[in-house]
This record gives sequence, structure tokens and C-alpha cells, in this order.
Amino acid sequence: MKTLAIDMDGVLADVLELFLDFDARDFGRRKTRAEVEGVPELQAFERALEYLHRDGFFRSAPVMADAQDVLYRLNQRYNVYIVSAATEYPKSLSEKQAWLGEHFPFITWQQIVFCGSKQIIRADLMIDDHLKNLDFFPNETYLFHAPHNAKVEAPRHRRVRGWKEVATLLL
Amino acid sequence: MKTLAIDMDGVLADVLELFLDFDARDFGRRKTRAEVEGVPELQAFERALEYLHRDGFFRSAPVMADAQDVLYRLNQRYNVYIVSAATEYPKSLSEKQAWLGEHFPFITWQQIVFCGSKQIIRADLMIDDHLKNLDFFPNETYLFHAPHNAKVEAPRHRRVRGWKEVATLLL
Repeated sequence: MKTLAIDMDGVLADVLELFLDFDARDFGRRKTRAEVEGVPELQAFERALEYLHRDGFFRSAPVMADAQDVLYRLNQRYNVYIVSAATEYPKSLSEKQAWLGEHFPFITWQQIVFCGSKQIIRADLMIDDHLKNLDFFPNETYLFHAPHNAKVEAPRHRRVRGWKEVATLLL
Repeated sequence: MKTLAIDMDGVLADVLELFLDFDARDFGRRKTRAEVEGVPELQAFERALEYLHRDGFFRSAPVMADAQDVLYRLNQRYNVYIVSAATEYPKSLSEKQAWLGEHFPFITWQQIVFCGSKQIIRADLMIDDHLKNLDFFPNETYLFHAPHNAKVEAPRHRRVRGWKEVATLLL
């Protein structure tokens, strides 16, 4: 059975939506997704780093469209691991686990990995929205499309535009 | 450069000492290490599971003898990752990271992995006190000696008795 290593932020959790919300609240105008295309989130949102360290930030993230249904089905056919680079934000650790428990209750604690560098991960396929994670991974890679990576050239990675496309490829 | 995956509980953190302390406080008599030899910790200590879920349990663990000095030197010669099966006890996550920050400040957030199953880990050598982690690991393995594994036969794994022996083998 193939092993999948699936990222959280920007893949299962719509963290961009959170940034847009928080930024709009602080600066009085909501940026559009088009406006932040091609811009790393830490540059696109002036207070992004502060939000990432704030209590409750990750816990309130909306779920990415179709993620629940597709992940539920993937979980029946593959060894699924949720792999989040979470140790940079220690406060996020228990929030992220609680968030997974609420929105993806079929994912057990055995399937959750909170790490820093993803170079330690062994799997057959990695799904992630950041090149820094995919570039060092020796096996198959899907670059999960996001505004921040929209202008990135990444010929080695297959770009997937949402969970329905992942379902078409894997189910 | 070789990658090492090093366990926390029973390897860096002397969790047995904690169990002995908590158990003595609750039952009025301190068990000896000899007395719990060959017995899984969850059986040796009546309230072990309760302790594991208690706030502050992991945070107060003593450091294993020689671990700081040897790990400091290993960290200069190897890609070191600290890999702890911590998602079973979500409250422990931030405690464990704070504990590492206090006792092993040279370990960065990039080098910390909190997971459930260790089957997702890719490394050249795994150091762990539990066969359930080592048995599925495809590369080199050291079984870190502990009373709970003292009577286990594990010919595939090299038994190491403390950090000085690890230093002799790797430094």
C-alpha cells in the first residue's frame, strides 16, 4: 500500500483565507486572491508572522474545499500521514491536532506528524504547497496550487489545482 | 552526512524516573528499578496512563545521564533529528518542545519531529527504547537499554547501554 505524506496549511487548511480575514480586520480593506498571486504570504500580509504566533490562529482555519471527502476516501486506499511543519510555531501544535480531530476525525494520532524539516519524511508521494518541502523529497511530488506559488516554475513536481484533481489522480 | 533519528522518552528523557517518583507519591513506597525490570511501564505503574495525560508530566522529566554532552557532539557530526511519538498525548506536544529547548538548546525547531507511528521516518540510524518503533525501520537500529526492555530478545537491533556507549560507537 502506497504511503502519502499530506501537508496541512494551504492544502487541508485554508490558511490564506485566514490571512485575508486577519489582514482585512487590521487594515480595513480585504485584499483579493489575485492581488497576492505570486507573493509569499509573509510578504503579502504585513502582520503574517504575528498572526502565525497568535493563540487560536490555526484553530480557526477553514477547511479547503473537497478536502474532507477526498481525504476520507484516500484514507481507505492508502497509508495516509498528515505532515505539518509545525514546530516553528510551538503554540500551534495542540491547536493543529485539535483542528484535525474536529474536521478529519478519521485521521488517528498515529497518522499525524508535526515536524520542522520534512527531509526526515519517508513516503511514496508528498502533497505540499511549498517547494522547500518538495524539492528534497526523493519520490513522487504534487505541488498543491496556491496563489503564493502560482508563478513558481517547478517542472519536477505535478501541479494539482484542488482536491478534486487529487481524487482524479489517486482514486 | 548520516541522519540519526533519536527518541525522547527513555532515551533523552528519563521518564522511568518520573514514573517511579509519581508512583511513590501515590502509593507511599518507591519501587526499585530492579523490581520493574522486564515489565512494560504501563503495567509496572498502576496509574501510568493517567500520569502520561497529566499537565506538566513530561515537562518535569530529568535528563538521561550524559545525553546533553553526547548529543551536542553528535549534532556537529550528523544530521540529528529528535523523533518522539507524542501525538498520542496532545498535551505533551508543547511541553516536550519546551523541555528540549531548556535541556538541548542547540537542537533547532527544524530538527524536532512529533509523530504517532515512526514508520514515516527516513533516516540512516534510529535510536529508540521500543521494539514497536525499531522493528519497522529499514536501516540501522540501536535499542536503548531500559528496564522495560531488559528481557526482550532483539537480535536485529544493537543494544546500547547509555549515552557513553553511543558516543563510543558514533564519535
